[in-house]
Amino acid sequence: MIKTIGFIGIGLIGGSMALDLKTKGFANKVIGFDASLTNAEKALELNIIDEIVSLDELLQQADIVVMATPVNVTIELMPYALDNIRKGAYIMDVGSTKSLLSKKIDEHPNRGAFVATHPMAGTEYSGPEAAFKGLFKERVAIICNPEKSSPKALNQISELYYHLDTRLILMDANSHDEHVGYVSHLSHAISYALAVAVLDKEKDDTAIFNLAAGGFASTVRLAKSSVDMWLPIFEQNTEHILPILDIYLEKLNMFRTYLENKDTAQLAGFIKEANRIKDKLKK
Amino acid sequence: MIKTIGFIGIGLIGGSMALDLKTKGFANKVIGFDASLTNAEKALELNIIDEIVSLDELLQQADIVVMATPVNVTIELMPYALDNIRKGAYIMDVGSTKSLLSKKIDEHPNRGAFVATHPMAGTEYSGPEAAFKGLFKERVAIICNPEKSSPKALNQISELYYHLDTRLILMDANSHDEHVGYVSHLSHAISYALAVAVLDKEKDDTAIFNLAAGGFASTVRLAKSSVDMWLPIFEQNTEHILPILDIYLEKLNMFRTYLENKDTAQLAGFIKEANRIKDKLKK
Repeated sequence: MIKTIGFIGIGLIGGSMALDLKTKGFANKVIGFDASLTNAEKALELNIIDEIVSLDELLQQADIVVMATPVNVTIELMPYALDNIRKGAYIMDVGSTKSLLSKKIDEHPNRGAFVATHPMAGTEYSGPEAAFKGLFKERVAIICNPEKSSPKALNQISELYYHLDTRLILMDANSHDEHVGYVSHLSHAISYALAVAVLDKEKDDTAIFNLAAGGFASTVRLAKSSVDMWLPIFEQNTEHILPILDIYLEKLNMFRTYLENKDTAQLAGFIKEANRIKDKLKK
Repeated sequence: MIKTIGFIGIGLIGGSMALDLKTKGFANKVIGFDASLTNAEKALELNIIDEIVSLDELLQQADIVVMATPVNVTIELMPYALDNIRKGAYIMDVGSTKSLLSKKIDEHPNRGAFVATHPMAGTEYSGPEAAFKGLFKERVAIICNPEKSSPKALNQISELYYHLDTRLILMDANSHDEHVGYVSHLSHAISYALAVAVLDKEKDDTAIFNLAAGGFASTVRLAKSSVDMWLPIFEQNTEHILPILDIYLEKLNMFRTYLENKDTAQLAGFIKEANRIKDKLKK
């Protein structure tokens, strides 16, 4: 049984993890540090954490450290955290990009204590108020470059996810960043652009949102996602996102051409091809 | 009290309407015709309709006719229906395009008996099995070109929507097609292209859908929508959809350029602009 788990960053992801790990008995004490004291106090008030500590106190006290910060913070802070966690403690991140982080810390003498993880779960909301139990249940978490982590670190962190009911997939950092570019980063880019296009139209048409039906709400949902979290993800994964965006733009332009040419057969073929997604997604 | 309401097309939309209108006491008999006898029999089995009739029987018996067919069928069938509904009966459509339909029937001698409507509600599923009560509750229905309909027709059809708890917005057909191009047709085009792009990637990477998290599922949801319904919508509204698609492509290319140029300030501005959608959508 882990005694103390420490969260650096207590928002939607860190907070939701903390709630479940305490309920499930994986930790008996949850300590937290957040760059925003307001966030930390809110997390304390919501019983997400038991105690607010300083960053250094957290690194000294925690048996497991979870860094659940925006990816630009993670990459800056991780070497310091690896320098300062106490002996026998382990540390994981939860970020949506992995290649740059790997490059930054793979040669660190304490690299074995670190496990790179990415739980594929979230909502368009952020902050400790957005945290809820069960966020990771039956979702997938990716463990990146497991060969760089010590066996004991892998054991501890896989047990952590076991307590969250999360399935694990192991993958190298580069494959991770490409896969996630497709199934997550691209969706966010698409959705942000949709919001910007429709908001642009709204400038001379205030009634447009009266009509926003379920279809629009679902496609534009991700455009609510916070700039603090998403800007650094796009910046850290530009190398993978650009070619993926180009493939997407090519497909959308193809659709546009079929439409312009009134090419019914090609348009029908395009939609039927898209419909195959039904068989690929569980729900 | 309406005695008999007749549905031409008993799928998600027609079927859901039928379920609510009978429960709410707006009609005491629901008759239905569907080009697919399987659909009609399924609707009967599910108690969505009370009786399967032929098209001509339906037009002769119904006090209100609801044409809930794909828009290509609606445009073909509406003149015949207006020729053949019995005197004193009214007819409405529920389609997602209105300009072409208007042009086709505005000079019809029985035009006053028709009300052009578009309930902005639906799911990615189709057929009578997809129908459910409450689909239109607190949603918006657009009534197009109300000046072309007789006052009695408008009264009857607005009462029908009143029984569905649907709010009404009146709009000319051309404005409708542009608005709906933005908040519905564009979202579908975007989503179909996303599905095609990711399915393309999947050809050499079967694992990709293991990672499909909630974000992807929500953006790609509409790509499940049926080709029978959506192909004719795109074809009938091409004139509005092309310029809207171009605005969208321009925004997404803008995002791509900022990303490629590592222009943090512009990228942050783009995401923050998109975030304004939060204040515009009720939930």
